Amino acid sequence: MTDTTLRAGERALDLGPAGDAALRFIGTIHTPWPDRDACPRQGQLDGPECRIRLDPEWRPALAGLDAYASIEVLYWLGLARRDLLTQSPKRDGQVFGTFALRSPVRPNPIGTSMVKLLRIEGADLIVRGLDCVDGTPLIDLKPDRCLFTPKAPPKPGDI
Amino acid sequence: MTDTTLRAGERALDLGPAGDAALRFIGTIHTPWPDRDACPRQGQLDGPECRIRLDPEWRPALAGLDAYASIEVLYWLGLARRDLLTQSPKRDGQVFGTFALRSPVRPNPIGTSMVKLLRIEGADLIVRGLDCVDGTPLIDLKPDRCLFTPKAPPKPGDI
Repeated sequence: MTDTTLRAGERALDLGPAGDAALRFIGTIHTPWPDRDACPRQGQLDGPECRIRLDPEWRPALAGLDAYASIEVLYWLGLARRDLLTQSPKRDGQVFGTFALRSPVRPNPIGTSMVKLLRIEGADLIVRGLDCVDGTPLIDLKPDRCLFTPKAPPKPGDI
Repeated sequence: MTDTTLRAGERALDLGPAGDAALRFIGTIHTPWPDRDACPRQGQLDGPECRIRLDPEWRPALAGLDAYASIEVLYWLGLARRDLLTQSPKRDGQVFGTFALRSPVRPNPIGTSMVKLLRIEGADLIVRGLDCVDGTPLIDLKPDRCLFTPKAPPKPGDI
């Protein structure tokens, strides 16, 4: 059960269940951090190796990803509450808007990291730069937008 | 109804409905592009101004975001099919794995962009750098990870 207490200065919305769109988990992320207190606040590109275990049926979708040294990873921070408008990360009464933080506590608790892709072993990706709990569900993998050149010709909006 | 035809070399999975986690849309993105064919393939920081209309109840969660010149935007590309393992973006028979592309066609069609935050007007954010269709649902706003310094002290995993 998610904690629903509020610290000084924090504000929450009274929300019903979310239901505008549904996600499908496509794998599991293995990291050295067993719980949220142990995680780094932000991933570091020289941090420990982590293993992204893509569900095997998605393995053909990796074709070509090994060309990228840096990839974007999206994952589901399902342990976090989703109703806070303002938060006090230091628990000292100083509050910030949820959108001014990269805290897992947000209306849609999706983590995004740019990670260093070390190698691909079957359907597993070995990376550095993650910050999430061991067992975090995987949502998506994309090439780093800074390295990626679209494979198809420009469209009218590109001009 | 989403198109389910396959072009040469494309592969799809036979998937049931997604249901591992649920999203709540928190606003709507207004852009100059009425449909997918009109959108740029990638947002450009000198592209046209776009307006992110945050739902008003979330406005307090913007507190402090105006300190960032660059923010990350997550949005739902709900027009895209979700079952393709490999895709041919040029429609020329040359195929790539879905995860080696930044195409909207992916198991969880979430777009992520780093945009330039020009100004905040009430619950609206005026930005440059988006690439999505007018009316796209908003999922999240975060400070640019490269500019953001965590507001709370390091945790064990940071050391």
